[in-house]
Amino acid sequence: MKPSLAKGTRDFTAIEVSRRKYIIGILQNNFELFGFQPLETPSFENLSTLTGKYGEEGDRLIFKILNSGDFLDKISTEELAEKKYKSLTPKISEKALRYDLTVPFARFVAMNQNNLVFPYKRYQIQPVWRADRPQKGRYREFYQCDADVVGSNSLWQEVDLVQLYLTSFKELGIDVHLHINNRKILSGLAEYAGITEQLIDFTVALDKLDKIGKEGVVKEMLEKNIPQTSIDVLDFLFHPAGSALENLQMLRDKFQDIPVGLQGVDELSFVINQSIALGISEENLKFDITLARGLDYYTGAIFEVKAKNVAMGSIGGGGRYDNLTEVFGVKNIPGIGISFGLDRIYLVMEELGLFPKNAATQVHYLFANYGEFEAREALKIIGKLRQKGIVAELYPETKMKKFFAYSEKRGVENLVFLGETELQNQSITVKNQTTGEQKTMSIQEFLA
Amino acid sequence: MKPSLAKGTRDFTAIEVSRRKYIIGILQNNFELFGFQPLETPSFENLSTLTGKYGEEGDRLIFKILNSGDFLDKISTEELAEKKYKSLTPKISEKALRYDLTVPFARFVAMNQNNLVFPYKRYQIQPVWRADRPQKGRYREFYQCDADVVGSNSLWQEVDLVQLYLTSFKELGIDVHLHINNRKILSGLAEYAGITEQLIDFTVALDKLDKIGKEGVVKEMLEKNIPQTSIDVLDFLFHPAGSALENLQMLRDKFQDIPVGLQGVDELSFVINQSIALGISEENLKFDITLARGLDYYTGAIFEVKAKNVAMGSIGGGGRYDNLTEVFGVKNIPGIGISFGLDRIYLVMEELGLFPKNAATQVHYLFANYGEFEAREALKIIGKLRQKGIVAELYPETKMKKFFAYSEKRGVENLVFLGETELQNQSITVKNQTTGEQKTMSIQEFLA
Repeated sequence: MKPSLAKGTRDFTAIEVSRRKYIIGILQNNFELFGFQPLETPSFENLSTLTGKYGEEGDRLIFKILNSGDFLDKISTEELAEKKYKSLTPKISEKALRYDLTVPFARFVAMNQNNLVFPYKRYQIQPVWRADRPQKGRYREFYQCDADVVGSNSLWQEVDLVQLYLTSFKELGIDVHLHINNRKILSGLAEYAGITEQLIDFTVALDKLDKIGKEGVVKEMLEKNIPQTSIDVLDFLFHPAGSALENLQMLRDKFQDIPVGLQGVDELSFVINQSIALGISEENLKFDITLARGLDYYTGAIFEVKAKNVAMGSIGGGGRYDNLTEVFGVKNIPGIGISFGLDRIYLVMEELGLFPKNAATQVHYLFANYGEFEAREALKIIGKLRQKGIVAELYPETKMKKFFAYSEKRGVENLVFLGETELQNQSITVKNQTTGEQKTMSIQEFLA
Repeated sequence: MKPSLAKGTRDFTAIEVSRRKYIIGILQNNFELFGFQPLETPSFENLSTLTGKYGEEGDRLIFKILNSGDFLDKISTEELAEKKYKSLTPKISEKALRYDLTVPFARFVAMNQNNLVFPYKRYQIQPVWRADRPQKGRYREFYQCDADVVGSNSLWQEVDLVQLYLTSFKELGIDVHLHINNRKILSGLAEYAGITEQLIDFTVALDKLDKIGKEGVVKEMLEKNIPQTSIDVLDFLFHPAGSALENLQMLRDKFQDIPVGLQGVDELSFVINQSIALGISEENLKFDITLARGLDYYTGAIFEVKAKNVAMGSIGGGGRYDNLTEVFGVKNIPGIGISFGLDRIYLVMEELGLFPKNAATQVHYLFANYGEFEAREALKIIGKLRQKGIVAELYPETKMKKFFAYSEKRGVENLVFLGETELQNQSITVKNQTTGEQKTMSIQEFLA
């Protein structure tokens, strides 16, 4: 049997694991500095916890786990004969793999609402699974890195998360634009154009402006029966100009009789003004009036992060929502969350050469093996090196040719020779593989 | 809908995540110091990769993933009507959750044999899933932490892994006994007693000596048709006495005409003698002639670790095997591996109070919120604290009563007050929550 990976999955070898850990380490450190606490939820949840939370398409893409034992036991022959897989699924599968981190988080908050201290700030870095068709850069198992604050409506959370985003990406070395919008501004625009009923169609089309251009967006809007007159009223959206603050003023004028729009402008102004006052460059913050990601979920601020120098699409996103846990019967838990796209961040950093050279641990000292007595003496020294945090190992076999081949292939930094002669003199010979320099010194000197 | 966890799974909150990370961090650091490289494999594999590798019981306990889409499409109505879940399973499920780390590792080695540098030393710390009946301390999702070296028969690997075990547990603060045996010695004993054909029955029974005592073991052996005369010949097994080296000498005498037994004695003597020469206390190493875990898999050294001061059973185990990848058609890749039981190590450390006090990150400074202007000035200082690696946050709301309640519940270390008066004087008031001491100082002084 020739083994293979399951479709859409990956093995991560040393260099990849180390680089991913490098990114995760920076995110984790920043999450904690900002007062977020870690949470880990199980890989699978009751199917009923996940079903119906991600739309019809999402339900389809959830990986379901087959019940153990005789899963057909309680199914009637008649029902089986109907071959209706949709209605059969919940009867033979009561568990499913985590599809995102938000619904398990909501489940956790709903279950523990009486023990949590609000505002509750949690971060979570775990894999999720989706039965998507695999393609370049899209996998069936991938990590999400989320930070959410729930239990507070304060706009200072928005301000703090803007800082968290920019601080983290700065530490990763990635120059970013943080695109920011507000769902209430989009609602205001729809009201302004008299298409309140078509808010979703309008924003879904508008969100594509940078991909399909004005012509494409207008075409899609017309197809969705948005009247030409409304599109004309909103024509200014297709010609973005001016600074964030100028555009907010322009909207304020238009929204004089549209309270929801004005509130959106006020909220966004607060976040942008405070961020600038805190030293964030206006150049990094982009008021992007077309930004609408996940509109049916977000109710206030909407964020999206893009790398400046690489065409990669979004490497982060998030926003404010009104009620995290309503679907689990717990009301009045508003919140705001942001997410970091680990896989894309990895690709950006690879492209820009941002990983530290020694992300993967190298073997610093590889000892040749001259036989039982010498090997044991080598292991004594190796033990002392490891105590100092130095990676060292003994080559297990006594064949020098294989020793050299192994050291070459593994990229060992230094070769160490501790043979009979050396041991007689209590000396040790070290060859630096980069410089080619070879030195004999006393063991004491070497260990110091 | 009242949400709940899937049976046999757990949420890990801040303190648990931090403590688990503490353990994992120490293991990972030691794995790397010993020259092991990280590997991560996908959470699910092709079902065919896992089936048949863990015995019948294991096959039953593998979590299978239901195929996406219309999984009944290609199943005939006749076949469904038969309701044979066992033969139906591979037709509606082609993927399954990782059951251990060894088979995915073998799959990886078999797939990448031409690119790997042998001996290949990998460590892997990932969750596995088993459809076991949940009970106290047994979960359906749990972590395994494995280190394996493959591609070398050298007994120096055994010696190095003994060091790795003892160094790691020492750093964790756990006093352990490392039980050690050799499969070849067990084979030798069976030959010595004339029950070579009953090797498995013999060792499975013997392995239970510390649980069910001599009487129980003899009873089980008799039930398995091991003759009383053979049991009498092996009577010395039930009365362990003498040091490891003395017992090895005793076996050497008995095994004079039993080559496999002699080889086992030689191998074990080498490992024990070298370990002692390297400074390991004989007291920590226990030659345990009854130790047989996973006998059908191990071919040489067998390890098991137990905590000295806590009744917890095995907190680690491993051994040498002849061929990791044979089942995937790749021959001649022998190896040796050890495993650390994260959940049990956690329980031992909890019981012995071995976790550092601040395993979970605390909020060092929580700033009160006196309104927009003051809050912004607070955030400026908070930003500077975070740059220094200090966890700081602004309480988002201006209600002082809620601020105090929150700080109390979260166990914040210091409260910070930066009101109008303080700002006028460029001063700041800090209250230490442990000592109750309150101090006003200049902002500059505070930041220094």
